[in-house]
Amino acid sequence: MVDLNKMFKPESVAVIGASNTPGKVGYIIVDNLINDGFKGEIYPINPKGGEILGKKAYANIEDVPGKVDLAIITIPSVFVNAVVKECGEAGVEHMVVITAGFKEVGDEGAKLEAELTAIGKEYGINIIGPNSLGITDSHTPMNGSFSQMMPPTGNMAFISQSGAMMVAIIDWSVTSGIGFSKVISLGNKAGVNEIELLQYLADDDETKVIICYLESISENEDFVRTMRETARKKPIIILKSGSSSAGAAAASSHTGALAGSDLAFDTAFRQSGIIRVDTMAELFDLGLAFSKAPLPRGDHVAIITNAGGGGVVTVDAMEKAGLKLVQFDEETTERLKKCVTEEGSAKNPIDVLGDAPVSRYKESLEIVLSQDEVDSLIVMVCPTASADPDGIANAILEERKEFDKPIIVVNMGGPSFEKANDALRENGVPTYVFPETAVTALKAMTDYAKLEDKSYDDVVENIDDVDKDAVKAIFEKVKADGRDTLLGSEAYAVAEAYGISAAPIKLSTNAEEAASLAEEMEFPVVLKIASDKILHKSDIGGVKVGISSAEEAKSTYDEIIANAKAAHPDIIPDGVEVQKMMDSGEEVIVGMIRDEQFGPMIAFGMGGIYVNLIEDVSFNLAKGMSSQEIDEQINTTKVSQLLAGYRGEAACDVEEVKEAIKRVARLTLDFPEISELDINPIFVYEEGSSALDIKIKL
Amino acid sequence: MVDLNKMFKPESVAVIGASNTPGKVGYIIVDNLINDGFKGEIYPINPKGGEILGKKAYANIEDVPGKVDLAIITIPSVFVNAVVKECGEAGVEHMVVITAGFKEVGDEGAKLEAELTAIGKEYGINIIGPNSLGITDSHTPMNGSFSQMMPPTGNMAFISQSGAMMVAIIDWSVTSGIGFSKVISLGNKAGVNEIELLQYLADDDETKVIICYLESISENEDFVRTMRETARKKPIIILKSGSSSAGAAAASSHTGALAGSDLAFDTAFRQSGIIRVDTMAELFDLGLAFSKAPLPRGDHVAIITNAGGGGVVTVDAMEKAGLKLVQFDEETTERLKKCVTEEGSAKNPIDVLGDAPVSRYKESLEIVLSQDEVDSLIVMVCPTASADPDGIANAILEERKEFDKPIIVVNMGGPSFEKANDALRENGVPTYVFPETAVTALKAMTDYAKLEDKSYDDVVENIDDVDKDAVKAIFEKVKADGRDTLLGSEAYAVAEAYGISAAPIKLSTNAEEAASLAEEMEFPVVLKIASDKILHKSDIGGVKVGISSAEEAKSTYDEIIANAKAAHPDIIPDGVEVQKMMDSGEEVIVGMIRDEQFGPMIAFGMGGIYVNLIEDVSFNLAKGMSSQEIDEQINTTKVSQLLAGYRGEAACDVEEVKEAIKRVARLTLDFPEISELDINPIFVYEEGSSALDIKIKL
Repeated sequence: MVDLNKMFKPESVAVIGASNTPGKVGYIIVDNLINDGFKGEIYPINPKGGEILGKKAYANIEDVPGKVDLAIITIPSVFVNAVVKECGEAGVEHMVVITAGFKEVGDEGAKLEAELTAIGKEYGINIIGPNSLGITDSHTPMNGSFSQMMPPTGNMAFISQSGAMMVAIIDWSVTSGIGFSKVISLGNKAGVNEIELLQYLADDDETKVIICYLESISENEDFVRTMRETARKKPIIILKSGSSSAGAAAASSHTGALAGSDLAFDTAFRQSGIIRVDTMAELFDLGLAFSKAPLPRGDHVAIITNAGGGGVVTVDAMEKAGLKLVQFDEETTERLKKCVTEEGSAKNPIDVLGDAPVSRYKESLEIVLSQDEVDSLIVMVCPTASADPDGIANAILEERKEFDKPIIVVNMGGPSFEKANDALRENGVPTYVFPETAVTALKAMTDYAKLEDKSYDDVVENIDDVDKDAVKAIFEKVKADGRDTLLGSEAYAVAEAYGISAAPIKLSTNAEEAASLAEEMEFPVVLKIASDKILHKSDIGGVKVGISSAEEAKSTYDEIIANAKAAHPDIIPDGVEVQKMMDSGEEVIVGMIRDEQFGPMIAFGMGGIYVNLIEDVSFNLAKGMSSQEIDEQINTTKVSQLLAGYRGEAACDVEEVKEAIKRVARLTLDFPEISELDINPIFVYEEGSSALDIKIKL
Repeated sequence: MVDLNKMFKPESVAVIGASNTPGKVGYIIVDNLINDGFKGEIYPINPKGGEILGKKAYANIEDVPGKVDLAIITIPSVFVNAVVKECGEAGVEHMVVITAGFKEVGDEGAKLEAELTAIGKEYGINIIGPNSLGITDSHTPMNGSFSQMMPPTGNMAFISQSGAMMVAIIDWSVTSGIGFSKVISLGNKAGVNEIELLQYLADDDETKVIICYLESISENEDFVRTMRETARKKPIIILKSGSSSAGAAAASSHTGALAGSDLAFDTAFRQSGIIRVDTMAELFDLGLAFSKAPLPRGDHVAIITNAGGGGVVTVDAMEKAGLKLVQFDEETTERLKKCVTEEGSAKNPIDVLGDAPVSRYKESLEIVLSQDEVDSLIVMVCPTASADPDGIANAILEERKEFDKPIIVVNMGGPSFEKANDALRENGVPTYVFPETAVTALKAMTDYAKLEDKSYDDVVENIDDVDKDAVKAIFEKVKADGRDTLLGSEAYAVAEAYGISAAPIKLSTNAEEAASLAEEMEFPVVLKIASDKILHKSDIGGVKVGISSAEEAKSTYDEIIANAKAAHPDIIPDGVEVQKMMDSGEEVIVGMIRDEQFGPMIAFGMGGIYVNLIEDVSFNLAKGMSSQEIDEQINTTKVSQLLAGYRGEAACDVEEVKEAIKRVARLTLDFPEISELDINPIFVYEEGSSALDIKIKL
């Protein structure tokens, strides 16, 4: 883990390229350091020396009398690498490179950037940037950025891969009641990347939640396992843009980062416990809730409202989100009835009515919060003539003291609630204007709280009964033959070596052999022309099913070879494959998509010829995949209902399906040369299963 | 159509229950009328007479010297109906009943309300309410509500079924840049309902867009056709709450309205051209766009941004929404290249870079807007050090003058943009903080603009070759038998009478008849025990397939009857049904769900035994259904791809499917007594189709 403590809490900062000219970046940064209250030493570095903004300037880093914890670089890109070296010699351990003109401008810049990375490694310097707007820490305090505004203080850390977005958000946050611990402009990530920052921030006491705007994710050998650990410590919320194909193109044109497949990101984030959001608004709405409120212990929610309509809207949103309405017991209902009067509703959502005085809110808050089955509470206030927003805010803050439960307040209105919103947010209660936002935030918190119950095992890594050498030998033979696609018999042998139940397929090269293989397997069998060059085998009479005797096998062998020759005189087939005919079962598919960034991603779903039409499929990354995740993967598909015994049919052997998923994961992890793998269908029986058609491409 | 002109533009208003006591509703309303600038006569009505807020008070409505255009009632509920009668006698044509204590408080109140409705009808009074917060018209101006604030002036009309939500929204709108033409609190809808209001507002020159918060929709015989006409005049955006089952329960408890099925609402709104939104935020975000910008002529969008990241997020959102990025031709690209400098991007999204001066925005705006293929434009501004929000706003307002295209501005930030947002919104350019909101709004406008291209025909009503009497006779026989489910042979006869292609099924009551029916149909046939009381017919040996001769038919008849007797000695079967065995085809389902509010809703989708698992199904309401809508219904399903010839297979006879949908619609409209109807499967062939299993329940 990278120690970035002095990056954010330096005792001294050198600004290399400091300037006396207002408007220049080297001026703004020195100015920001001074004006936003940085208490350590500030060393402006400028070849001309003299004084900058009242501070003595030094010609270069070696001249600085004390130790420099952090250097911020603003000089033109061609000079950067030499200066970074000097910094390294001078023992500087942390740097922020503001200078642009690296990877983002093309090949020349990319070369410079690779050099920068190398120098950083050589000297052990942690570099943020280049092409960064800088970093801020509102607790230090330090504004080491050229943002004109210091973000308001809070416990939310914000990492942004776009500098302009960072500035926009700081501007917006001023009126949004959101506060930041640290704001970091990532830039090109030549040194420190977002994964290292997330790991550092997860242990930062001043940070309660981390939100990120990212356009790419840095390479990490074991992303899921690394981030799992980090995400358990602190909630991580990511807006990963470039999810559309056009968006990805735009992203890579402007940051030079290769955008991975969006499905793989989705999968990797889910398996890691990272919260992915779709919109910028959601990024901050969720951030606000996590930064303020404690986590709920479960998914049962109570609602108190002075507007029936607001209650209805909230319940609609909750049902869509999968949150549950608490049902109160009789005693509680009786108490609530007394409190809300006859016209109100004592059932959840509790309607205290438009004429509710503060006391009615306070009393119902007390009753509701004291119920064990209430995990969280949404309080809604409409600005009716009788409503006293400030009084209600006080009541909430008082009642909440005894209970460690999240309370989310929906203050539906504008000016009437300004004071109440401030009071609530300052004291750990998130507030929103509309009920749906509150529900979205609460849902994310509820889901995050469940991470605690997740168990992770190394179910793929722990498989020890595979024959890697056998597979290696098969692949070598395929490559030696100049092919990239395995014959059915080869694919079967691979499945066998990795313990994947499959219908036996063996290759015969003459009629006698076909007959004896068939006898070994027991009749009936299927005979199929063996050739990776003949695509539509059935159409040319290359497939014969239901062969039930040795004699028939022999004559069919010859017939198939003759048919193939007639149709493709120029192709010499590898022989004829003999496959045991299996009873049909529930059809599923297990496949693999290899993602450039995250490696093999295992697909599972409903099998058959309409796989691409039905699209009943779910995914897990092979690396880091746990037993629990395999269960979830199966259970999110519709075909899982067929496997479980649909409408009174017998249940199928789901354990066999899990085994297949696990073993395909292991196989594709062990052999990165497998570019495509599809098993469709696998017949799943009441007991056991059988892979019918296995396609492997190298 | 109800003429509500004097409701919103009265020359005189009487407040019945006017009061001198501050805080009382009767005081607030008189006060609001005076203070919010109502220029007509105000007549406070109070038995004590005297003076109220400086206006002469009258003991009752008859004493008022002039004509009263609008009466607002605030007296206790028990006195309301008598006073409404008096108003009727005095010639008052419009009333708003603020008083609560009607349907929403139970049976007693419901009785009062029914009386109120009757009195209104008798005297021809248009009544809004009871249990309404009142109405406002900011152009008149008139604040005839007890909202403490007059909504800001604008061209958006807002109808709310929840009074508290209305107050909340007025409060919120003050800082949101939204302005209203009229705000109407619906209350219990005892008189004027939302459909009548929508029709009135569609012709109101002061209203450009209508937004609604509704918890129920009023009964209307021909909802889809009525609203279609209205929605074409003005965009109607509805947040219909109670979409969840729990939400619906909460809604009906608090307004006393029976919430219909949410799927039916979705379908009815879609067929009407009403825009349904899911969240309150969306209701106003969309409202803002429609109220400010002109409609786009197509779905091609250009983006200008000074932050690459913002461009990426916008493109992601656009792709999800189904909007298209304009591709510029070479000449335009060259012009843009010169404008945005080498580091910028001349491809859409156009990146003018963080250091863009106003001139660069202005120039690129001019180039982009003048392109014919650009239907709409999103301009994004991040508050970088060089950005001049006010200057950019001016440039936008200037450049836009020549082009009648919607421009949506994303000003990403807070305080930096306050002035620019005001300037833009005041001059017809909607602005948002986040790009995703802009895209959602633009998508809604683009879809709405397409309504123009829709054509509607009376394809269901125009069917004239059905034999209604035959069906009537069958239903009468079924009822006479004391059954509610039709036998297969009866259902077949119904299908035949309505021109729905089906596999013939006839009932035989002895072996000879079975054989002769089979001979008529041609072999092979299926024989099935005929009885609505025997459910699992196959299990008891009650179904025999593949009968291929008269002899076999005879013996099978006896066998089936014997099997049925053995299994159910107490049931006397109706006989044995003979059905022609059909070749199998693509399997689809056509069914009907009868909605309490909107009548028959026709379902179409993938057929077979896993219908409920696969859930590949789409809906249209029978009443008002057009040919275009039937096409869309078919095309939104996955099975439509199979029908069109999936992966080189032959295409099926889609015309036959349309015919089946149309005719089922007509049948279920003609016979409201049909409570359930399911045809699953219909085999669709390259030519023709055949309904295999038709279930009809009365």
